[in-house]
Amino acid sequence: MITILRIGHRIQRDKRITTHCALISRAFGADQILIDTFDKKIEETIFSTCKRFGGSFKIKTGVKTKKIIEEWKGIIVHLTMYGEKLNHAIKKIDKKKDILIIVGAEKVPGYIYEKADFNISIGNQPHSEVAALAIFLDRITEGKWIDKKFNGKLEIIPSNKGKKVITNE
Amino acid sequence: MITILRIGHRIQRDKRITTHCALISRAFGADQILIDTFDKKIEETIFSTCKRFGGSFKIKTGVKTKKIIEEWKGIIVHLTMYGEKLNHAIKKIDKKKDILIIVGAEKVPGYIYEKADFNISIGNQPHSEVAALAIFLDRITEGKWIDKKFNGKLEIIPSNKGKKVITNE
Repeated sequence: MITILRIGHRIQRDKRITTHCALISRAFGADQILIDTFDKKIEETIFSTCKRFGGSFKIKTGVKTKKIIEEWKGIIVHLTMYGEKLNHAIKKIDKKKDILIIVGAEKVPGYIYEKADFNISIGNQPHSEVAALAIFLDRITEGKWIDKKFNGKLEIIPSNKGKKVITNE
Repeated sequence: MITILRIGHRIQRDKRITTHCALISRAFGADQILIDTFDKKIEETIFSTCKRFGGSFKIKTGVKTKKIIEEWKGIIVHLTMYGEKLNHAIKKIDKKKDILIIVGAEKVPGYIYEKADFNISIGNQPHSEVAALAIFLDRITEGKWIDKKFNGKLEIIPSNKGKKVITNE
Protein backbone atom coordinates (compact mmCIF):
# COMPACT_ATOMS: atom_id res chain seq x y z
CA MET A 1 0.00 0.00 0.00
CA ILE A 2 1.33 3.42 -0.96
CA THR A 3 0.28 6.53 0.98
CA ILE A 4 1.28 10.09 0.13
CA LEU A 5 1.58 12.61 2.94
CA ARG A 6 1.51 16.18 1.68
CA ILE A 7 2.81 18.62 4.31
CA GLY A 8 2.95 22.41 4.49
CA HIS A 9 -0.11 22.80 2.28
CA ARG A 10 -1.28 26.43 2.13
CA ILE A 11 -4.84 26.53 0.82
CA GLN A 12 -4.56 29.59 -1.40
CA ARG A 13 -0.98 29.37 -2.58
CA ASP A 14 -0.72 25.61 -3.08
CA LYS A 15 -4.19 24.68 -4.27
CA ARG A 16 -3.17 23.74 -7.78
CA ILE A 17 0.18 22.16 -6.90
CA THR A 18 -1.41 20.04 -4.16
CA THR A 19 -4.30 19.09 -6.46
CA HIS A 20 -1.74 17.97 -9.03
CA CYS A 21 0.03 15.94 -6.32
CA ALA A 22 -3.27 14.24 -5.47
CA LEU A 23 -4.15 13.50 -9.10
CA ILE A 24 -0.69 12.10 -9.72
CA SER A 25 -0.90 9.95 -6.62
CA ARG A 26 -4.12 8.46 -7.97
CA ALA A 27 -2.96 8.08 -11.58
CA PHE A 28 0.47 6.70 -10.70
CA GLY A 29 -0.70 3.88 -8.49
CA ALA A 30 -0.81 5.21 -4.91
CA ASP A 31 -3.73 4.21 -2.68
CA GLN A 32 -4.37 7.44 -0.80
CA ILE A 33 -3.18 10.95 -0.08
CA LEU A 34 -3.22 12.63 3.33
CA ILE A 35 -2.90 16.42 3.48
CA ASP A 36 -2.03 18.28 6.67
CA THR A 37 -4.25 21.33 6.19
CA PHE A 38 -8.02 20.84 6.10
CA ASP A 39 -9.16 21.69 2.57
CA LYS A 40 -12.72 20.79 1.59
CA LYS A 41 -12.24 22.06 -1.96
CA ILE A 42 -9.40 19.68 -2.81
CA GLU A 43 -11.29 16.77 -1.28
CA GLU A 44 -14.26 17.56 -3.53
CA THR A 45 -12.09 17.86 -6.63
CA ILE A 46 -10.55 14.46 -6.03
CA PHE A 47 -13.87 12.80 -5.07
CA SER A 48 -15.29 14.14 -8.33
CA THR A 49 -12.36 12.75 -10.37
CA CYS A 50 -12.71 9.34 -8.72
CA LYS A 51 -16.46 9.33 -9.30
CA ARG A 52 -16.03 10.01 -13.01
CA PHE A 53 -12.80 8.17 -13.78
CA GLY A 54 -13.01 5.31 -11.28
CA GLY A 55 -10.61 3.57 -8.95
CA SER A 56 -10.58 3.32 -5.16
CA PHE A 57 -8.21 6.18 -4.39
CA LYS A 58 -8.79 7.99 -1.09
CA ILE A 59 -8.08 11.50 0.16
CA LYS A 60 -8.15 12.94 3.66
CA THR A 61 -7.23 16.49 4.64
CA GLY A 62 -6.63 18.02 8.07
CA VAL A 63 -4.51 15.10 9.32
CA LYS A 64 -1.95 15.23 12.13
CA THR A 65 1.44 14.89 10.45
CA LYS A 66 3.49 13.99 13.53
CA LYS A 67 1.01 11.35 14.68
CA ILE A 68 0.96 9.69 11.25
CA ILE A 69 4.75 9.63 11.09
CA GLU A 70 5.18 8.39 14.67
CA GLU A 71 2.67 5.58 14.21
CA TRP A 72 3.71 4.50 10.70
CA LYS A 73 4.53 0.77 10.62
CA GLY A 74 6.16 0.58 7.21
CA ILE A 75 8.82 2.55 5.38
CA ILE A 76 8.97 6.35 5.31
CA VAL A 77 10.38 8.07 2.23
CA HIS A 78 10.86 11.84 2.08
CA LEU A 79 11.36 13.36 -1.35
CA THR A 80 13.86 16.24 -1.25
CA MET A 81 16.42 17.73 -3.64
CA TYR A 82 19.00 17.24 -0.86
CA GLY A 83 18.42 13.51 -0.56
CA GLU A 84 20.42 10.53 -1.73
CA LYS A 85 20.25 9.56 -5.37
CA LEU A 86 17.03 7.92 -6.54
CA ASN A 87 18.67 5.21 -8.63
CA HIS A 88 20.76 4.16 -5.64
CA ALA A 89 18.08 4.46 -2.96
CA ILE A 90 15.27 2.73 -4.84
CA LYS A 91 17.10 -0.61 -4.72
CA LYS A 92 17.18 -0.55 -0.93
CA ILE A 93 13.42 -0.11 -0.47
CA ASP A 94 11.44 -3.23 0.41
CA LYS A 95 8.45 -2.81 -1.93
CA LYS A 96 6.40 -5.40 -0.07
CA LYS A 97 6.09 -3.06 2.94
CA ASP A 98 3.63 -0.17 3.26
CA ILE A 99 5.29 3.01 2.06
CA LEU A 100 4.60 6.53 3.28
CA ILE A 101 5.91 9.14 0.81
CA ILE A 102 6.27 12.61 2.30
CA VAL A 103 6.04 15.54 -0.12
CA GLY A 104 6.73 18.99 1.32
CA ALA A 105 5.83 22.45 0.13
CA GLU A 106 8.48 25.18 0.76
CA LYS A 107 10.27 24.66 4.09
CA VAL A 108 10.25 21.16 5.53
CA PRO A 109 10.82 20.84 9.31
CA GLY A 110 14.07 19.17 10.33
CA TYR A 111 12.39 16.25 12.09
CA ILE A 112 11.05 14.99 8.74
CA TYR A 113 14.64 14.42 7.56
CA GLU A 114 15.33 12.57 10.82
CA LYS A 115 12.22 10.41 10.87
CA ALA A 116 12.42 9.38 7.21
CA ASP A 117 14.09 6.04 6.52
CA PHE A 118 15.05 7.45 3.15
CA ASN A 119 15.55 11.06 2.08
CA ILE A 120 15.57 10.71 -1.68
CA SER A 121 16.35 13.22 -4.41
CA ILE A 122 14.84 13.03 -7.87
CA GLY A 123 17.91 14.73 -9.27
CA ASN A 124 19.70 17.35 -7.19
CA GLN A 125 18.44 20.31 -9.18
CA PRO A 126 15.55 22.53 -8.11
CA HIS A 127 12.37 21.54 -9.93
CA SER A 128 8.98 20.43 -8.66
CA GLU A 129 7.46 18.25 -5.98
CA VAL A 130 4.86 17.27 -8.56
CA ALA A 131 7.50 15.87 -10.90
CA ALA A 132 9.46 14.32 -8.03
CA LEU A 133 6.38 12.44 -6.89
CA ALA A 134 5.53 11.27 -10.41
CA ILE A 135 9.04 9.97 -11.08
CA PHE A 136 9.28 8.28 -7.69
CA LEU A 137 5.92 6.52 -8.16
CA ASP A 138 6.96 5.55 -11.67
CA ARG A 139 10.10 3.88 -10.32
CA ILE A 140 8.53 2.27 -7.26
CA THR A 141 5.72 0.73 -9.37
CA GLU A 142 8.28 -0.17 -12.05
CA GLY A 143 6.24 1.73 -14.62
CA LYS A 144 3.19 -0.50 -14.09
CA TRP A 145 0.93 2.45 -13.16
CA ILE A 146 0.52 3.18 -16.87
CA ASP A 147 -1.57 0.05 -17.44
CA LYS A 148 -3.64 0.30 -14.25
CA LYS A 149 -7.38 -0.22 -14.84
CA PHE A 150 -9.73 2.23 -13.12
CA ASN A 151 -13.07 0.98 -14.53
CA GLY A 152 -14.55 4.46 -14.40
CA LYS A 153 -17.74 5.86 -15.91
CA LEU A 154 -15.50 7.83 -18.24
CA GLU A 155 -12.78 6.05 -20.14
CA ILE A 156 -10.38 7.62 -22.59
CA ILE A 157 -9.36 5.59 -25.62
CA PRO A 158 -5.78 6.43 -26.63
CA SER A 159 -5.69 8.06 -30.05
CA ASN A 160 -3.10 9.86 -32.15
CA LYS A 161 -5.64 12.45 -33.35
CA GLY A 162 -8.66 13.92 -31.60
CA LYS A 163 -10.43 12.89 -28.41
CA LYS A 164 -12.11 9.53 -27.89
CA VAL A 165 -14.05 9.14 -24.66
CA ILE A 166 -16.37 6.25 -23.78
CA THR A 167 -19.12 6.66 -21.19
CA ASN A 168 -19.75 3.40 -19.29
CA GLU A 169 -23.08 3.31 -17.43
CA MET B 1 17.80 19.71 -29.13
CA ILE B 2 14.66 19.63 -27.03
CA THR B 3 12.37 22.67 -26.86
CA ILE B 4 9.27 22.95 -24.69
CA LEU B 5 6.40 25.14 -25.89
CA ARG B 6 4.02 26.06 -23.08
CA ILE B 7 0.71 27.35 -24.42
CA GLY B 8 -2.35 28.89 -22.77
CA HIS B 9 -0.28 30.33 -19.92
CA ARG B 10 -2.36 32.67 -17.72
CA ILE B 11 -0.01 34.80 -15.64
CA GLN B 12 -1.94 34.78 -12.39
CA ARG B 13 -3.55 31.37 -12.45
CA ASP B 14 -0.68 29.35 -13.93
CA LYS B 15 2.37 31.08 -12.49
CA ARG B 16 3.43 28.19 -10.29
CA ILE B 17 2.48 25.38 -12.67
CA THR B 18 4.31 27.05 -15.57
CA THR B 19 7.32 27.77 -13.35
CA HIS B 20 7.39 24.09 -12.43
CA CYS B 21 7.20 23.20 -16.13
CA ALA B 22 10.19 25.47 -16.80
CA LEU B 23 12.23 24.07 -13.90
CA ILE B 24 11.47 20.51 -14.98
CA SER B 25 12.43 21.30 -18.55
CA ARG B 26 15.79 22.51 -17.29
CA ALA B 27 16.37 19.70 -14.78
CA PHE B 28 15.21 16.91 -17.10
CA GLY B 29 17.48 17.71 -20.01
CA ALA B 30 15.57 20.09 -22.30
CA ASP B 31 17.43 23.02 -23.88
CA GLN B 32 14.83 25.76 -23.71
CA ILE B 33 11.25 26.65 -22.91
CA LEU B 34 9.08 29.03 -24.92
CA ILE B 35 5.93 30.44 -23.29
CA ASP B 36 3.14 32.07 -25.28
CA THR B 37 2.22 34.82 -22.79
CA PHE B 38 4.82 37.46 -21.97
CA ASP B 39 5.76 36.97 -18.31
CA LYS B 40 8.78 38.86 -16.99
CA LYS B 41 8.46 37.30 -13.53
CA ILE B 42 8.87 33.71 -14.74
CA GLU B 43 11.80 34.71 -16.92
CA GLU B 44 13.51 36.23 -13.89
CA THR B 45 12.85 33.17 -11.74
CA ILE B 46 14.41 30.85 -14.30
CA PHE B 47 17.35 33.20 -15.02
CA SER B 48 18.02 33.25 -11.30
CA THR B 49 17.92 29.45 -11.04
CA CYS B 50 20.32 29.10 -13.98
CA LYS B 51 22.66 31.71 -12.50
CA ARG B 52 22.86 29.85 -9.20
CA PHE B 53 22.61 26.22 -10.31
CA GLY B 54 24.28 26.42 -13.73
CA GLY B 55 23.60 25.00 -17.15
CA SER B 56 22.76 26.72 -20.43
CA PHE B 57 18.97 26.45 -20.32
CA LYS B 58 17.05 29.25 -22.03
CA ILE B 59 13.61 30.76 -21.53
CA LYS B 60 11.61 33.10 -23.75
CA THR B 61 8.09 34.35 -23.07
CA GLY B 62 5.65 36.20 -25.34
CA VAL B 63 6.34 33.97 -28.36
CA LYS B 64 3.99 33.41 -31.32
CA THR B 65 2.74 29.85 -30.98
CA LYS B 66 1.43 29.40 -34.53
CA LYS B 67 4.60 30.75 -36.11
CA ILE B 68 6.80 28.44 -34.05
CA ILE B 69 4.70 25.43 -34.95
CA GLU B 70 4.46 26.31 -38.65
CA GLU B 71 8.21 26.88 -38.97
CA TRP B 72 9.35 23.91 -36.85
CA LYS B 73 11.78 21.71 -38.81
CA GLY B 74 11.87 18.71 -36.49
CA ILE B 75 9.29 16.59 -34.70
CA ILE B 76 6.28 18.01 -32.85
CA VAL B 77 4.97 16.13 -29.83
CA HIS B 78 1.83 17.25 -27.99
CA LEU B 79 1.28 15.83 -24.52
CA THR B 80 -2.41 15.16 -23.87
CA MET B 81 -4.42 12.65 -21.85
CA TYR B 82 -6.27 11.79 -25.08
CA GLY B 83 -3.14 10.84 -26.99
CA GLU B 84 -1.71 7.50 -27.98
CA LYS B 85 0.10 5.46 -25.37
CA LEU B 86 3.53 6.68 -24.33
CA ASN B 87 5.22 3.28 -24.35
CA HIS B 88 4.02 2.70 -27.90
CA ALA B 89 4.64 6.19 -29.29
CA ILE B 90 8.10 6.72 -27.82
CA LYS B 91 9.58 3.99 -30.01
CA LYS B 92 8.49 5.80 -33.17
CA ILE B 93 10.22 9.09 -32.36
CA ASP B 94 13.54 9.76 -34.08
CA LYS B 95 15.56 11.09 -31.13
CA LYS B 96 18.25 12.51 -33.39
CA LYS B 97 15.85 15.17 -34.68
CA ASP B 98 14.95 18.41 -32.90
CA ILE B 99 11.87 17.88 -30.78
CA LEU B 100 9.23 20.46 -29.90
CA ILE B 101 7.13 19.34 -26.94
CA ILE B 102 3.84 21.21 -26.58
CA VAL B 103 2.37 21.43 -23.09
CA GLY B 104 -1.06 23.03 -22.78
CA ALA B 105 -2.90 24.58 -19.87
CA GLU B 106 -6.70 23.98 -19.76
CA LYS B 107 -8.22 24.01 -23.27
CA VAL B 108 -5.90 23.28 -26.16
CA PRO B 109 -6.98 24.54 -29.63
CA GLY B 110 -7.85 21.83 -32.14
CA TYR B 111 -5.10 22.78 -34.58
CA ILE B 112 -2.47 21.65 -32.06
CA TYR B 113 -3.80 18.08 -32.31
CA GLU B 114 -3.65 18.37 -36.10
CA LYS B 115 -0.18 19.88 -36.37
CA ALA B 116 1.46 17.54 -33.87
CA ASP B 117 3.25 14.53 -35.36
CA PHE B 118 2.48 12.72 -32.13
CA ASN B 119 -0.29 13.33 -29.61
CA ILE B 120 0.96 11.33 -26.65
CA SER B 121 -0.72 10.45 -23.37
CA ILE B 122 1.23 9.86 -20.19
CA GLY B 123 -1.48 7.52 -18.98
CA ASN B 124 -5.09 8.24 -19.94
CA GLN B 125 -6.12 9.47 -16.50
CA PRO B 126 -6.42 13.14 -15.54
CA HIS B 127 -3.32 14.29 -13.67
CA SER B 128 -0.84 17.05 -14.37
CA GLU B 129 1.01 18.62 -17.26
CA VAL B 130 3.96 18.96 -14.90
CA ALA B 131 4.12 15.20 -14.34
CA ALA B 132 3.41 14.45 -17.99
CA LEU B 133 6.36 16.60 -19.04
CA ALA B 134 8.67 15.04 -16.45
CA ILE B 135 7.80 11.49 -17.46
CA PHE B 136 8.08 12.26 -21.17
CA LEU B 137 11.51 13.88 -20.74
CA ASP B 138 12.58 10.96 -18.57
CA ARG B 139 11.67 8.50 -21.34
CA ILE B 140 13.02 10.54 -24.26
CA THR B 141 16.39 11.04 -22.51
CA GLU B 142 16.30 7.39 -21.38
CA GLY B 143 16.72 8.52 -17.77
CA LYS B 144 20.06 10.19 -18.50
CA TRP B 145 18.86 13.60 -17.23
CA ILE B 146 19.51 12.43 -13.69
CA ASP B 147 23.29 12.45 -14.17
CA LYS B 148 23.47 15.69 -16.16
CA LYS B 149 26.19 18.07 -14.93
CA PHE B 150 25.23 21.73 -14.56
CA ASN B 151 28.49 23.10 -13.11
CA GLY B 152 26.64 25.74 -11.13
CA LYS B 153 27.81 28.04 -8.35
CA LEU B 154 25.62 26.00 -6.04
CA GLU B 155 25.91 22.25 -6.03
CA ILE B 156 23.96 19.86 -3.86
CA ILE B 157 25.72 16.79 -2.59
CA PRO B 158 23.26 13.88 -2.30
CA SER B 159 22.86 12.83 1.32
CA ASN B 160 20.51 10.55 3.25
CA LYS B 161 20.33 12.99 6.19
CA GLY B 162 20.47 16.78 6.25
CA LYS B 163 21.47 19.27 3.55
CA LYS B 164 24.90 19.41 1.93
CA VAL B 165 25.47 22.31 -0.43
CA ILE B 166 28.81 23.33 -1.96
CA THR B 167 29.40 26.87 -3.20
CA ASN B 168 31.77 26.92 -6.20
CA GLU B 169 33.30 30.33 -6.92
